[in-house]
Amino acid sequence: MPTTQKIRYSDCDPQGIVFNGNYPRYWDDALTDWFEDAGFEGQGLGDTGLDVVAARLEIDFKKAATLGDTLETSIEVEGFGKTSMTVGLTTRRLSDGEIVTVGKEVIVFVDAETFRPVTVPESVRAILSQESS
Amino acid sequence: MPTTQKIRYSDCDPQGIVFNGNYPRYWDDALTDWFEDAGFEGQGLGDTGLDVVAARLEIDFKKAATLGDTLETSIEVEGFGKTSMTVGLTTRRLSDGEIVTVGKEVIVFVDAETFRPVTVPESVRAILSQESS
Amino acid sequence: MPTTQKIRYSDCDPQGIVFNGNYPRYWDDALTDWFEDAGFEGQGLGDTGLDVVAARLEIDFKKAATLGDTLETSIEVEGFGKTSMTVGLTTRRLSDGEIVTVGKEVIVFVDAETFRPVTVPESVRAILSQESS
Amino acid sequence: MPTTQKIRYSDCDPQGIVFNGNYPRYWDDALTDWFEDAGFEGQGLGDTGLDVVAARLEIDFKKAATLGDTLETSIEVEGFGKTSMTVGLTTRRLSDGEIVTVGKEVIVFVDAETFRPVTVPESVRAILSQESS
Repeated sequence: MPTTQKIRYSDCDPQGIVFNGNYPRYWDDALTDWFEDAGFEGQGLGDTGLDVVAARLEIDFKKAATLGDTLETSIEVEGFGKTSMTVGLTTRRLSDGEIVTVGKEVIVFVDAETFRPVTVPESVRAILSQESS
Repeated sequence: MPTTQKIRYSDCDPQGIVFNGNYPRYWDDALTDWFEDAGFEGQGLGDTGLDVVAARLEIDFKKAATLGDTLETSIEVEGFGKTSMTVGLTTRRLSDGEIVTVGKEVIVFVDAETFRPVTVPESVRAILSQESS
Repeated sequence: MPTTQKIRYSDCDPQGIVFNGNYPRYWDDALTDWFEDAGFEGQGLGDTGLDVVAARLEIDFKKAATLGDTLETSIEVEGFGKTSMTVGLTTRRLSDGEIVTVGKEVIVFVDAETFRPVTVPESVRAILSQESS
Repeated sequence: MPTTQKIRYSDCDPQGIVFNGNYPRYWDDALTDWFEDAGFEGQGLGDTGLDVVAARLEIDFKKAATLGDTLETSIEVEGFGKTSMTVGLTTRRLSDGEIVTVGKEVIVFVDAETFRPVTVPESVRAILSQESS
């Protein structure tokens, strides 16, 4: 289920629009919900002994959002590397479906204790490959 | 030494002024610096085995700050309880010395492992009583 | 309707709990929703030509909230001054009803253009007096 | 002059490191300082009648930063389009010079009133081309 974000007073800046630096936070929230929907709850990835860290982020800012808007972020897997996953993220304004931001994030799977990259377990990859929001 | 805060674009809201919810963050930063100046560095209170948590916060918003302002927060100890300390905080605009926010915070000393309140060690109390910024 | 806040990764600090400076933001969000529920939508107070600013904030931190918690903030009017309103705010953890933070906020009604305090219009006072969440 | 950022308690998340979503804010602060150093102060670009908006952001997260670190962000112009400028940003840990994040941002020049893209004035381009931090 896509994550929705009601735009708040503190999200907007003196231009009256959402401060661009807030979108990575919305995306992080959406990713958390997405992992939860896939069955990986809590800090890190549930009881897998894994955690995830962001390795790269690309965002195109297409439209400005403002007070009164509710945004919805959807996620789809674009592919896996040995220790990483690339997801595409699209944030739309709920009222008219306009794309506000679109981009991708590369996530690296790490050992929850050492934070060293680990090969994505086949079981995790199988579950996440089928998850979309 | 008082902590200064250059007001940033993301600190201000559509009214063009600093979002009121940011001041507790500025005060937390000032408190951290204040503890550091007193010799307690790092997460928690250095090597004392203690940490601190906020128990109560009172803020009076006197003036609005905005882009271009730099704020300076000074701290003084108002008193100690068995497990707590009350500090007074005053945030002024550097350019004209006007008080922007003023108030107090009650801090509780806790065991850094269990987070249970502990009696303020006399040595810590002695050091902090002489600290001002 | 009380405003709910799902606790996010970025809401929590290295202690693993919600950073105390985030609560004023949750309260601001709750106040915005509360004004909207009362019929005052958009920036400022709808088409009244008024806006509101925070004059004073008191928060008691009772319990720590953390990842996985959802918080719910309810608001009730405690009284009106000539140009101000005092509201009581209570934030509870949804799962067990425990009070996480409780306090009050003094809000001043201002002219939306000049930001000078104005006497609370009787019509506004009548509507807000009956609003609770 | 590069912009420095002392890492704060509220900047770090339960992993004990800087939340990835904070870096775009550090970069926005660095960009603001950079424009100021070039002579464009205040909201928007001084008295040019222009403002800037972010169009695209790319960040590679190379190292984790944490409490006690101070980060320094430097900026250099990579090129201009008709209405845009691309800058490269590099954030290093001050203590050891390690690159923490590196990337680029595409900025679009807009009319400060209408927020419509405008051709970068030759005078602005000339000044910014020589600015580095």
